[in-house]
This record gives sequence, C-alpha cells and structure tokens, in this order.
Amino acid sequence: MCQLLGMNCNKPTDITFSFQGFSKRGGLTDHHTDGFGIGFFEGQGLRLFLDDQPSAESPVADLIRRYPIKSKNAIAHIRKATQGRTTLENTHPFQRELWGRYWLFAHNGNLKPDAPTSEYYQPVGKTDSEKAFCYMLEQLRGQFAQRPSCDELFDAINRLCAELREYGLFNIIMSDGETMFAHASSLLYYICRKHPFGYAHLIDEDMSIDFSTITTPNDRVAVIATLPLTDNETWEQFACNELIMFKQGEIVRRSRPENPVYLSREEGLEIARKAGVSF
Amino acid sequence: MCQLLGMNCNKPTDITFSFQGFSKRGGLTDHHTDGFGIGFFEGQGLRLFLDDQPSAESPVADLIRRYPIKSKNAIAHIRKATQGRTTLENTHPFQRELWGRYWLFAHNGNLKPDAPTSEYYQPVGKTDSEKAFCYMLEQLRGQFAQRPSCDELFDAINRLCAELREYGLFNIIMSDGETMFAHASSLLYYICRKHPFGYAHLIDEDMSIDFSTITTPNDRVAVIATLPLTDNETWEQFACNELIMFKQGEIVRRSRPENPVYLSREEGLEIARKAGVSF
Repeated sequence: MCQLLGMNCNKPTDITFSFQGFSKRGGLTDHHTDGFGIGFFEGQGLRLFLDDQPSAESPVADLIRRYPIKSKNAIAHIRKATQGRTTLENTHPFQRELWGRYWLFAHNGNLKPDAPTSEYYQPVGKTDSEKAFCYMLEQLRGQFAQRPSCDELFDAINRLCAELREYGLFNIIMSDGETMFAHASSLLYYICRKHPFGYAHLIDEDMSIDFSTITTPNDRVAVIATLPLTDNETWEQFACNELIMFKQGEIVRRSRPENPVYLSREEGLEIARKAGVSF
Repeated sequence: MCQLLGMNCNKPTDITFSFQGFSKRGGLTDHHTDGFGIGFFEGQGLRLFLDDQPSAESPVADLIRRYPIKSKNAIAHIRKATQGRTTLENTHPFQRELWGRYWLFAHNGNLKPDAPTSEYYQPVGKTDSEKAFCYMLEQLRGQFAQRPSCDELFDAINRLCAELREYGLFNIIMSDGETMFAHASSLLYYICRKHPFGYAHLIDEDMSIDFSTITTPNDRVAVIATLPLTDNETWEQFACNELIMFKQGEIVRRSRPENPVYLSREEGLEIARKAGVSF
C-alpha cells in the first residue's frame, strides 16, 4: 500500500494525527513497512526523515510518534514494496534545492523507462520518481532564472505533469515550503479544514481528535492523501489529471480537465495493479 | 564552541562514542547548544539530522544517543552561536547533489562577504558556509561533467580550499559518501584507528571504550575533530592549510604546505576569536 500524504497550513501545525492513521497503511506498527519518509519545512529549513528499515524499532517512526514537529508544509510517503528491498536512496520524499529553496517531492505511480531525463539534477537512487523530480526541477530552472510568481509556477508544473503522465501513473505531491502542488493520475483526495473546526475520526485506527480544542478561528489546514484518512468528514477527490495548488491551507489554483473523470477506489486500485505499483 | 567531527571507515561503524564526547562541547547536555547537525551516509543514501533547538528535549539528540546508526561516512557540526538564534536553514552540515551523489559539508570559520558566489547552486540560508559549499560544488561541476578520479577530485578541492581560505578561516569537512576531505585553516586533528585496537577514554566525559571488543582486525576508522576527543591516544594535527583525503578509514592523499605551521590550541582559539567565530 504505497501512499502519499501532504499537509499545507497557514500556521505551523503538527501532523501527528494524520500521520497516525496514514502510517498504519504501510503496516508501520506491524513490521511490514518497506520504507517511508516524511519531510517538514520549518521556515526555509527542511527536516527530512527517511527510513528503509521494516522495523517497529525504527528510530524515525519513533521520533515522529513522540515529537510533534510543527510545520506549514509537510510531505510523507509510505511504501509497501513489491520488488526487492527499499534502500535509503530510493526512499521518498526526495529533496533538492532550486532557486535557493529546498523542494520536496513524493510520487505514487510508475513511469516508463523512456520518460525524459535531466542533465544537471541527477538522481542518486534508481527510482523513476526521483528521475521525474530531477527532470521537473531542471525544466523549471530552464524556464525561470529565479522563482516566478505562484501562478507562473503553477502553469509550468501543470505542463510538466501533463508531459510526464504520458509515461505512466503520476500521482505526486511537491512543495518548496511555501506552496504545495498535488497532481493526480488516479486516486488522490484532499480536505481543507477551517473554522468552525470539528471532531475527526481516523479510518485506520479507532482514534479521534476534536480540532476545535487545538485550533484558533484563523487556522487553515489542507490535508492531501491517496485515500481519505477520516470517516466522518467529507474529503474531496481530485479528478484524473487534475493539479491543485495549495497555499496557507487553502486552494489557490486548480486545473481540472474539462470533462473530469473520478475513479472509484476499486478502479484506482486496479489501475495501480496493472501498472505494477503496490498501491 | 563551534566544532567539526568527521568519521570515515572501511565498514559501517557507529559514531556513538565519538559523538558522546563531541556533543558535550556544544553543551548538548546542559541546554547550551545553538544548533547542531549530523549526517550519515548509508550506501548512496543520506540521513541528515539537524537541530536548531537548544534543548535537552531535542528529538534529534535523543535519536542519536539511542540509535547507533552505522555509516562509513558521517559528518557532524555543533555550534555555540555568538549572534542571534540559529535557524534550521543555517544549520550544518549542508546537503546538495552533484554527479548523482549527495554531498555533505560542514564548516568552522568565517569568510568575508566578498567570497565568491555561485549561480546554479544557491544557498537556502544566510551562512558564508553554505555559500562556500555552493561555490565549491559549482566549480567542481564546471570542471568535471561527471565524477572524476579521487586524485583529480583531490587536486580540484585543494585548489578551491586555497582560493577560499584567502577570504577567511576555512576549516571544513566534506564527503560524497565515499571519500572524505578535511581542510584546516587553523585547528583540526585526526586519528586513524586500526588493528590492534585498544582502549580509548573521552576527554569531555569520563567514558571509556575498548575498541578491541567491538572490532575485527580488518576494521579501519578515521576520526577527524576540531580538537582531540580522547586523552589516551595520539591524535595527529593538520598543518595550517593542509588538505587530507580519507578513504576506507585511512589517508590516501594529503597536501601539506612545504613549511608546515602547527598552531597551539591557544593560538587557534585566538585566531577564531579575532575572526569573530565562536570557536
């Protein structure tokens, strides 16, 4: 069960609750995780925790559970491998610097080997995902000598997603610590929580939280996930081939196909299976 | 007390013992640390733990203490700030990718504002250190389209160190996960431990270890530090302006000035003080 999780907020927020449910999906608590990673932006800085060890003794999982790191932008990826052992260098999210900012990228899907490559940014590991990330950054750099406006960035990333999804399944979340971009080829959901905050109950574990007790009326938190994490809230689904840009905990731009297609969970899982992705 | 620590080995080794003494110097255990970081290569992968919080509750310090991560190349940096709060993006070591490998870099010293800059690699934070790292990588990339031999790399880095130390104090440790380069402007020491291994006693804490009980005759471990970490072993000193390349736990190249100058600890500290470095 290879899944994506993103959080974009207007105030530094801890992701403990979402991560608790999310991490269950990789079998974190029953020794079946084949690698996961989570990156937190803090200001311009970045903390990236990667784990390739399928162990409940994982120092990283332990750290995330025990210390609620607060961030306005966080991305996590959890993987159930179908082939071989996950090595550290193949573990998402990936990190690079562009325009004097760190970028984080996580991918769920797979791209054909003939997907475009880059020269300057080079993958360290062997994944199609890191290769695509490097290609995207190189293209962005080629188009803009410095960080453009968010709208220009959105248009450029939208074109790149359209190009790359021609090579396969391309569900991604990426961020430069300010803006979060999420693109769906198949299954991806989001929720934008804001005042009045309510109670939320995890799907994957019998755990609830009353957000009203830990938020202020001005807080806004967007959460993006491969599948909804809670069962008593309304999660919105990305259309296939839709790109959404989140900033300060809300949607600021979206590019939805004219005739949007929404997959059922079963259809999405079937597509992933056919593509050989352990979705 | 701003210090560097590097470890280069021929087999994955944990740095717990050295880190235990090293971390004392930043006041880790008495709440006075103003930021520290440690990066571990594992194969091509990299784990980088950064901490800008002066707290004994630090999740990162706790993690390093409790989990002996094994690595062939590790670099740590600990800082006692003289000015302002350390932010995450200003915390060493810094990480970038070059030639499809991650590089780690930590610096002790300070460079004048007119030190050269780079265009492609850009600093995320505000330190002269990250600026110098970006400049070095950009120059290396300009000279070599792909990773050259270690000897060519050594010569190029030696030229870059000679150039950069004209701008100020430039004690550095850097690594691509295979080779470790250490350059001293003022104070830097190393020890290459190999068979027969003996007993070592930390200077900064009453703690000893008998390496013979945890090593095999083939193990080789080089440790580099601003000041010796143990008081019953012979640490060798870098000459001023000397660059040494370590690989598989031993020295493979060095460039020592023809008339080497070795500073006393007092002279080194005085130079650091004059340069405004909280050494």
